[in-house]
Amino acid sequence: MSTAKRLTGKPVADQMTAVNQEEAYRLRQRGIIPLLAIIRVGEDPGDISYEKGAVKRAQMTGVEIRHVRFDENVTQRELLEAIHSLNEDDKVDGILLLRPLPHHINEKYVCEQLSPAKDMDGITSGSMAGVFMDTDVGYPPCTAQACMDMLDYYGIDLEGKKVTIMGRSLVIGKPAAMMAMRRNATVTVLHSRTSREDFARAGQTADVVIAAMGRAKMVGEDQLGNDQVILDVGINVDEDGSLCGDIDYGTAEQSAAMITPVPGGVGSVTTAVLMKHVLQAASRRADARQV
Amino acid sequence: MSTAKRLTGKPVADQMTAVNQEEAYRLRQRGIIPLLAIIRVGEDPGDISYEKGAVKRAQMTGVEIRHVRFDENVTQRELLEAIHSLNEDDKVDGILLLRPLPHHINEKYVCEQLSPAKDMDGITSGSMAGVFMDTDVGYPPCTAQACMDMLDYYGIDLEGKKVTIMGRSLVIGKPAAMMAMRRNATVTVLHSRTSREDFARAGQTADVVIAAMGRAKMVGEDQLGNDQVILDVGINVDEDGSLCGDIDYGTAEQSAAMITPVPGGVGSVTTAVLMKHVLQAASRRADARQV
Repeated sequence: MSTAKRLTGKPVADQMTAVNQEEAYRLRQRGIIPLLAIIRVGEDPGDISYEKGAVKRAQMTGVEIRHVRFDENVTQRELLEAIHSLNEDDKVDGILLLRPLPHHINEKYVCEQLSPAKDMDGITSGSMAGVFMDTDVGYPPCTAQACMDMLDYYGIDLEGKKVTIMGRSLVIGKPAAMMAMRRNATVTVLHSRTSREDFARAGQTADVVIAAMGRAKMVGEDQLGNDQVILDVGINVDEDGSLCGDIDYGTAEQSAAMITPVPGGVGSVTTAVLMKHVLQAASRRADARQV
Repeated sequence: MSTAKRLTGKPVADQMTAVNQEEAYRLRQRGIIPLLAIIRVGEDPGDISYEKGAVKRAQMTGVEIRHVRFDENVTQRELLEAIHSLNEDDKVDGILLLRPLPHHINEKYVCEQLSPAKDMDGITSGSMAGVFMDTDVGYPPCTAQACMDMLDYYGIDLEGKKVTIMGRSLVIGKPAAMMAMRRNATVTVLHSRTSREDFARAGQTADVVIAAMGRAKMVGEDQLGNDQVILDVGINVDEDGSLCGDIDYGTAEQSAAMITPVPGGVGSVTTAVLMKHVLQAASRRADARQV
């Protein structure tokens, strides 16, 4: 009965990495060594795991990593000094600040101190304004960009499509809405305050669903229609301790045309997007040097 | 047969102006004279008419206006010098740059030179980031804000409502979508690439419609449902040379619960919102001086 095509992230990440490798090679030929600084505060297992993935991808790609680590008692001042010095360091192309930060740190303020030009994951308002206004200031959040790259790889054109986005976060929902709109999709954004009935209807009538609520398997057959393309951005742990998305995969794959699994879906593209951003920044550095 | 309540802008603007007057008075008591600089290039009748309205509203409110005028052959350099000097002038609380600018000027670049803190009409990316990220950097575009103030005045709560926005411009559509989402509405944004069928369905099923396509009377009974609240932001000239909105008012008022007329609707609130922004900026100036 399983009919949906599985949209796995690996071939998307592989193809992107192949392109990235060539770009990194070209940059090195020009004397530029692409460099990403990763700032990690504390020993959060999620942070460590993401950092590990990024390092592996960077090695594969030809991007250098500079690790900047603080214990969780770091003062805000120390963190800001590190950011300012990375902002000013001409050798550093991009900065990834792992979050959330400890509670004694004003996270919003600290994030804003990143130079948008080095903000690889869309956490500054400069980057966000770029996504919103469709300019090339800064970089969009990697996961939102990964959704678009996933659609591109699998040949899914959003022009004139109804895209329903479940979740309105600044990390995925809102930027994905802007990016889909830019691709001429008709976008509806659902969230925790959307009525159950409206949620179901907008889910059922969508051509493409992007689920990013962060709630394990909350979207099932009542909220979905037939022959849809479903991108599941959620990464949650279910009652058995297994990773799962926001979509009830077992149910959804019966009716969907295409669906991303969790794990192995959108999440596996994110670090390749991160490297793409680093290489774009490095390429700007190379061009600026040449002028 | 006419059943819809007319949501006129005048009482909204009047009430807002009364509040603004008190605020201007308080600021003057503190030695602060709220000042708006209006930059106009050329003699466009639309610009002149908007400027006239703003001046009248400013006089009513107790806000001073500084006129900065250039003929249409102004160089980009002259314009930039004027903007920089207004940015740095401590006596200037806000800047309104009338647009569009002549073709030989890089409008996007020039707009970005405004200090977001003095950008009264949301034309800089700093202001837009504020709307997008829900921070208090800069000010939203006056017309998008006027839609929200209109809804507030008439007691229309967006919580859990389906809001359909027709148009995806940076001046109205996109910021209004963000502002409605922040008020917990479920938002759908339609535009020129939305299919006729999807447009009709999203129009019909909305609780609140915000029309901002800029196309005379393009929305009629096929795109509307019953008992809706309709905000018509369009200001167009119809075939008889009369002002009209994007909504076919004659048809829509038969089925809507409430509808804004054109002229006399949302447009009449805009200059009051502009003055509110100037006073907010002046109040920040007063507070900063006190510290």
